[in-house]
Amino acid sequence: MQKTGMLIVLSGPSGAGKGTICARLLERNPQLKLSISCTTRLPRPNETEGVDYFFKSDAEFMKMAEEGEFLEYARVFDYLYGTPRQYVKDQIKKGHDVILEIDVQGALKVKDKMDKGVFIFIVPPSMEELKRRLKKRNSEMEEQALKRFATAYLELDFIEKYNYIVVNDEVEKAVKKVECIITAERCRMERNRGMDEILKGGKSL
Amino acid sequence: MQKTGMLIVLSGPSGAGKGTICARLLERNPQLKLSISCTTRLPRPNETEGVDYFFKSDAEFMKMAEEGEFLEYARVFDYLYGTPRQYVKDQIKKGHDVILEIDVQGALKVKDKMDKGVFIFIVPPSMEELKRRLKKRNSEMEEQALKRFATAYLELDFIEKYNYIVVNDEVEKAVKKVECIITAERCRMERNRGMDEILKGGKSL
Repeated sequence: MQKTGMLIVLSGPSGAGKGTICARLLERNPQLKLSISCTTRLPRPNETEGVDYFFKSDAEFMKMAEEGEFLEYARVFDYLYGTPRQYVKDQIKKGHDVILEIDVQGALKVKDKMDKGVFIFIVPPSMEELKRRLKKRNSEMEEQALKRFATAYLELDFIEKYNYIVVNDEVEKAVKKVECIITAERCRMERNRGMDEILKGGKSL
Repeated sequence: MQKTGMLIVLSGPSGAGKGTICARLLERNPQLKLSISCTTRLPRPNETEGVDYFFKSDAEFMKMAEEGEFLEYARVFDYLYGTPRQYVKDQIKKGHDVILEIDVQGALKVKDKMDKGVFIFIVPPSMEELKRRLKKRNSEMEEQALKRFATAYLELDFIEKYNYIVVNDEVEKAVKKVECIITAERCRMERNRGMDEILKGGKSL
């Protein structure tokens, strides 16, 4: 049975550990495709077009934005970053599961456009632990860490928009939970309609 | 965070392999509780009250049935078998996940009463394979095997009432899928409401 893929969105507050979880998930599951973003910043020496990013001029990017070609986009300092809708849809059509690691604001925009995606909210075991992680990460940027911490509180209000919550107390346990969520979602009835007809028709699944 | 448990219903046509999957699942996950049925048949020498079955007289059983104390019940040859609602609810309240292995008719009755349960339909990889398994099981009962095979066709019509489909091509793979479904369901948003409030309140999850 030829199946289409799914969009899997890993999101949550800064410091919850979505980046680490995403990296380990991709390392262990080579069949998963990471969503490739468009950006207006210049490629760094080690970056490849179509692998790390799709590099665009400001004009190209804005044209795509106007034509609704982004699931979401945002400005980060001087540059624009966006998730191209067509790339994600093409991968899914080919049967690949696409992973998108994104902040809460971005995830909510994606959800408006692709509500059949699997939206996973990564939370820290406690806000105390989140604060510790943020401080560790930004030892010289106390102010920015505090700002991120304040934002995390606000972001918790959107938790109910997601399909799953994964508590990241230990990375390995959290990765296994995300892997299970992907396996389970592949078994969900809504993603397997027509199986009864295939069986009744005398074919194999 | 003190969580309640879930009801996990393993169902599907005779010969799909739900019994084998259930046995291996329980063996490997001692925290799962098997639902214990009530029956009017007499205990066999190796059977213990409250472990294998709750043994009831016909009168006791019928009184329970009239009082709505069964999630479902059915007559099998000369005896009555039923799934006691209270036992299942008590286990769930204590935080245990309860496994119920049951035929399609029974599962549909349970769904009417406990629609927050996780309903998993086990299918064979093909009907040809199902026939082979049924014949193997009932070498001297060709007629009964054919009857079960015909029933399996009819039961496929109810597949959409379930939450998940697991194809049992290899038992080990199927058991792992069911384990993942249980893990994923524990992470589902609807089963974790209030987590944001716990975090905001400065407590640990």
